[in-house]
Amino acid sequence: MQAMHKHISGFSNPTVKYLRSLRDKKHRKRAGQFLVEGLRLLEDARESGRVPQMLVMAEGNERAAAGHEVLAGLVRSVEAGGGEVITTTPDILSKITGKDNAQSVAGVFDEWDTGLARLDRGAAPIWLAAQALRDPGNLGTMLRTADAVGAGGLILIDDCADPFSAEAVRASMGAVFTVQVAQARWDEFVPWLRGGEGQLVAASLREAVPYRGAGYQAPCFILVGNESQGLPESYEAECDLRVTMPMRGRADSLNAAVAGAVLAYEVLAALDG
Amino acid sequence: MQAMHKHISGFSNPTVKYLRSLRDKKHRKRAGQFLVEGLRLLEDARESGRVPQMLVMAEGNERAAAGHEVLAGLVRSVEAGGGEVITTTPDILSKITGKDNAQSVAGVFDEWDTGLARLDRGAAPIWLAAQALRDPGNLGTMLRTADAVGAGGLILIDDCADPFSAEAVRASMGAVFTVQVAQARWDEFVPWLRGGEGQLVAASLREAVPYRGAGYQAPCFILVGNESQGLPESYEAECDLRVTMPMRGRADSLNAAVAGAVLAYEVLAALDG
Repeated sequence: MQAMHKHISGFSNPTVKYLRSLRDKKHRKRAGQFLVEGLRLLEDARESGRVPQMLVMAEGNERAAAGHEVLAGLVRSVEAGGGEVITTTPDILSKITGKDNAQSVAGVFDEWDTGLARLDRGAAPIWLAAQALRDPGNLGTMLRTADAVGAGGLILIDDCADPFSAEAVRASMGAVFTVQVAQARWDEFVPWLRGGEGQLVAASLREAVPYRGAGYQAPCFILVGNESQGLPESYEAECDLRVTMPMRGRADSLNAAVAGAVLAYEVLAALDG
Repeated sequence: MQAMHKHISGFSNPTVKYLRSLRDKKHRKRAGQFLVEGLRLLEDARESGRVPQMLVMAEGNERAAAGHEVLAGLVRSVEAGGGEVITTTPDILSKITGKDNAQSVAGVFDEWDTGLARLDRGAAPIWLAAQALRDPGNLGTMLRTADAVGAGGLILIDDCADPFSAEAVRASMGAVFTVQVAQARWDEFVPWLRGGEGQLVAASLREAVPYRGAGYQAPCFILVGNESQGLPESYEAECDLRVTMPMRGRADSLNAAVAGAVLAYEVLAALDG
């Protein structure tokens, strides 16, 4: 089996340059591909029906593949899907991922369509939405929360971090593969939302009701704002329900991903009850 | 006023080397000091009664100080407290903070005592605790949540990230200055906890009750575990109450800081009700 795999031993190999370039958002968008590091995430992807177009393994790991059921299964899936399996040195894999201690395997996936039109709002009672969320860790955490509460998906509004960045994928703990992600400008999102059923809810300090026991209705779209600016006032005004959460300390806000999660669990309890 | 300030123009100045070294945990612990970047955090500190031992401003900013009320007030506080005010070039300040776009001001604070003995468990109905929490962003987020729910403090158990790291301080949005932080090994924490009133609660999959409506009692200590391992089984067994949160997706866990926040808001509602 080993002999079938292409081997890369040079740092200046064009494939190495290409894979490195995928760390940069601009290059990801141009290529329509992204890089996922680590066997666990790759296995999460496979369980969700996503198989990489290219799999890159550090040497030694390839030899281990014969005895490593999960890795061997991944290699077979990639080959069965017409993808390419490449072996290289641990140093080159580190160069590709930009980490001193690189994961011993990485995969390249085609990005998928993130248009609003793909969403079926009737598919779930809860949806998460984030406006101008800049931190990829927060984005990944929200994907993970969306998975946990059984949300239909995460809608990224205006200029958010890239859900296909390595940091967002990692923070999502694989939820990027199972939770639907959509991307839209506010002026696309609002007409889409108002084209069907849907309650838009945001945490707010203006004309808001307590978040416990508020009148949540499915499908409920929970909207959080930018990490430092919050939501623009006109966006809050568009919401059907503005809720406040207790703030007993010095500050008047929570981390965006935390606020979204506390609200999402409240909505989950309300709609279940 | 400007003439009174020491000016540093050389990259190899020993003070520059010292300040740079504070980015490293080992050096922070040896020095007992940490570095805080940005006017907003420094102002948060001052409002909480913490004034830096040393303030470092980029040139230009110092000239602006005369017209900048907040910065000027900060300079006066440092001088009144016997601290040192230093001006330097933007490039050197960037070198100190390790950021291309450095904040234009940074301060050096003495670390403070984080022993358990300082905590007064009767001071608040809710306390947060984290075991082996490795991500400084999660740590800072938990400090911010602790502030929001009016928790007495955050107790860091076993080997956690450093609450005085730049990333934790930044993620805390200043809560590191207002929320009490304690650090302890598990075998110090448990005797301390059992030496008084206190209910230890953790999210768990073992012998647990639903987190909504569980019998929370003040002072309630909410314990979250390591990001990838969760809590050791023996630690869960020590808890007075094990609760489960709905997991409707593929995964069986939330981000640690998110889980802590959802529980903390539930406890807050329960104890208020």
